[in-house]
Parts: sequence; C-alpha cells; structure tokens
Amino acid sequence: MTTPASNDPFASRRIPADVVLLSAGPGDLELLTLKAVRALGAAEVLLLDELVDPGIVELAPNARVVRVGKRGGCRSTPQAFICRLMRRYALQGLRVVRVKGGDALLFGRAGEEIAFLRAAGVPVTIVNGVSAAFAAAAALGVSLTHRDHCHGLTCVTAHTADHGEPDWAALCATGTTLAIYMGMQRVDRMARSLLRHLPAVTPAAVVLAASQPGEQRLLTTLQALSADAAGLAGGAPGVILVGPALGEARSATPPVHQSAAAARLA
Amino acid sequence: MTTPASNDPFASRRIPADVVLLSAGPGDLELLTLKAVRALGAAEVLLLDELVDPGIVELAPNARVVRVGKRGGCRSTPQAFICRLMRRYALQGLRVVRVKGGDALLFGRAGEEIAFLRAAGVPVTIVNGVSAAFAAAAALGVSLTHRDHCHGLTCVTAHTADHGEPDWAALCATGTTLAIYMGMQRVDRMARSLLRHLPAVTPAAVVLAASQPGEQRLLTTLQALSADAAGLAGGAPGVILVGPALGEARSATPPVHQSAAAARLA
Repeated sequence: MTTPASNDPFASRRIPADVVLLSAGPGDLELLTLKAVRALGAAEVLLLDELVDPGIVELAPNARVVRVGKRGGCRSTPQAFICRLMRRYALQGLRVVRVKGGDALLFGRAGEEIAFLRAAGVPVTIVNGVSAAFAAAAALGVSLTHRDHCHGLTCVTAHTADHGEPDWAALCATGTTLAIYMGMQRVDRMARSLLRHLPAVTPAAVVLAASQPGEQRLLTTLQALSADAAGLAGGAPGVILVGPALGEARSATPPVHQSAAAARLA
Repeated sequence: MTTPASNDPFASRRIPADVVLLSAGPGDLELLTLKAVRALGAAEVLLLDELVDPGIVELAPNARVVRVGKRGGCRSTPQAFICRLMRRYALQGLRVVRVKGGDALLFGRAGEEIAFLRAAGVPVTIVNGVSAAFAAAAALGVSLTHRDHCHGLTCVTAHTADHGEPDWAALCATGTTLAIYMGMQRVDRMARSLLRHLPAVTPAAVVLAASQPGEQRLLTTLQALSADAAGLAGGAPGVILVGPALGEARSATPPVHQSAAAARLA
C-alpha cells in the first residue's frame, strides 16, 4: 500500500479526530511526561487551563491556542462551552489537546468531558500526569504514606459539588494522610472541623505553586494551620497536607515558612 | 571563574553526592517525566525495583545497574541493604538514582530511605511520577472523582504494616473512590469486608499492568469482584478500584473482561 502524495493534509484525516485529555502536572514543565510532550507536538488545537504554565504552548508549535481558564470565584469559561469547542474541532478532524493541571482524572471535571465527547461519538485519549499532592510532598521531602505513620492517602476538595463539606470525621478515621485541594480560601473553617477529630499537634503543611519558581512551603500543626497559612502570599493554587506522615518533613530542606508551633515539635 | 580542565571527572565531585528517588510511573516508559529522563541520563548507579520495565536502563547509558527488586512473598533484597548501598555510592561521590515504580512517595518505602539518607548526611532529590491508580483510571477511560458520584480518591494497601487490615468502615464512609494497591492476593477477603459497608452493585474494577503491553482490565461489581478477578492472569501487579465513579467506565473502551453482572448494570 502506498500513501497518496497529497497536498491536502486533511485527505487522510479521521473524522472525528481523537481528543486528548492531557495532564500537565503541577506546573514545572519538566514534570510533563514524554507521552504528553508527544501529544503536544502533534496538537492542532490546544485548549488551555488557566493554571497551566503558559510556556507549554512552545511545545505545541502547530496548535491554535484557546484559553479556557476556570478558577474558583473568577470569571470563567463555562464547562458546556468548553465541551462544545472540543466537539466542534474534533468533528473538523483537528487534533484537539485539552490541557489540564495536575492529573486530568483527579478533580479535573474530566468525567463530564469524557461523557460529553463519548455521547458525540468522539474518541477520547487520556494522558496521565503528576497530581499536586505528590509534587507538594516532593517539595517537602516527605513520603505521603510513611508506613510507621499512616495507611494511605486521601485526596479531597475542601468543598463538595453540592457546596457542602466533606465528611471530615470519616476522613480522619481512615488513618490516611489527607491532601486537601482547593482549600486555601476555607482553611480556617476546615482546620476547625479537623480539630474536632485529630489532635491539635497533628503535623500539617501547605505547599503553594508546588514545583514552580514561586513555590511556597509551610510546615506547621493543625492547631496553628489557619494562622500560619494567613502569612502566605495568596493567589497561587495550593495543597494542604494533614497527618502524622508530615512529621517526617521537619528535618527536610527548610520550608520557607515554619511556624513557632512546628519548630517546638521538631 | 574558570573551570579547571581536568581529566579526572571526580575533581569537581560533591561528596556525598545527591541520591535521586525517581518515580518510574506505572510501566510505560513514555509515562516517565522529562525530569526523570534527565536524571536517568546523568545516573552513574541505578538501583532498580523489580516492577520497573527493564528497558529503562537504556535511558541510563552511563550507569552501573543494581537490581534490588522486592515483591510480596518472593525472595527480596532487604530494605536495610538497599539503604546502605545508596549511602555507600553517594559517599563515593557517585550519582545514585533509586528507581521506584509508580510515584516514589506513595507506598514506596521512600519514607524510610529518606530518613536513612538524611541521617547519613546524604542529600535526597525526589522526582515525581504517575501512580498506578491514575494509570488504571486512564486505562478504563474514567475520572477517579466524577463530581456527581464522589468526593475524592483514597489510595490504600490491602494490608497494613502490622499485618492488619485497613479500617474499611471508615474508608467506605468517606464517599471517595477507593484505589487499593497490592490487593490481588487478598481480593476475596477484601471484597467481603467492603460488602459490609457498600451496596453489592457498587461498581468495581481491576487493572493489571496498567499502561503496559500486558494490561488487563476488568469491570464488574463489588458483589462479583472476587469471582471475576479469579479469571485474570496472575502475577502482574494490579490496582483495584471501587466506587460509584467507576460506573462511568461502562461505556469506555471495552474492558478485556466484563462480567455478566457488570453487563447487566450497563
């Protein structure tokens, strides 16, 4: 079989084209996977989240870039519009790469996008990445699951889809390290809830902009978490880590901020 | 300042050298990060887990390779010996890269290795990767946290350090998707425990060797999990996923195995 020598690059296009849901990781572009880099190189349309390093576009030199940022409390692109955009381009046979921060399959609304695209007959490919909790632990130089201290890792958001709160009692009873995403604006209320179920001296940490040049690390206790977190520069997305496993971080590379309470523990 | 033109590559070595704890991801070498590939290229000693694709050594052409596999129930290299090896090479000024499957900071004994190396004055650098639960979800084409269905993700092992079991009641009460690592040998007992706390029709899945050529996927229910899992070829490491979010996988790329119970759900 010979490939027709055509000047029309669309001649051999599959319609609809695949949509790639691509995990961009925590921020440092070096934490992209080789698979992600390859998908970016082949991209013709790039749908870009606000939280992703804008430098990523250099890895997609052939792509038209559409910014579809969504951030809590800010002006945002409606989810339905993003879904329709992906479908439109895929039905034109264009290779769409939808870039999401962290891993696309954790708190990334990927479920809704996958369901929408499948209903439209558009194939979806998922490229994994490094989620923020892992990058935060790396920044603190600590295992998320030191087996002397805990049984696993639980990743939750500080608020649920119905604007309620997670079941903190159940979460604390699991004996897992808690990684709380999108919690910086509710840290005071969250810490008070957690203090009902965990000792005040439970180690806690915050990492903002993990893996990025503006990374900020705070190592403290649950008791002092809210007051200490207020001293961090706002704006960057952050992960809050809570649990005895974090206690191992006290001899880590010195955090930018270390509270008096945490220093007493060390 | 000029760099001395020396034929002795050790002239400018820092002693002790850094040890890099490197996350190799779920298996597919394309899921290595750019940062991991760079660290491998600079490695002089590679300590390799059994679960990592042996092809990774081609990315570390200058490294002496030491295999230090550990697998549940098999002959294994004692943890203390691995720690001493890392220290010895680092104190010789050699760039040691300790390769671990998945993300090194989740169930990888990294906590013990970090503590040992710090006590010896050896600096540790951590390079994140993709943990198996994420690769399993990608294989199933499903979000781990579809917000209509759950509040987050909990990663646990089927057995704890003291040979006990996790607190399944608490884990089930969290309303998070459960990702159970190293559970294939205990799937029957585990499923019976979970059935005390979750409905029998709760969607469940198993992915063996996620992202690798021998990948096997099973989509079923909690009720049928144990019987269906018995039909999978053994030996490969696997992740068990349990929770309503997995229900979205029923319209995914067809799993290799789909039980009658799961087909009735679809």
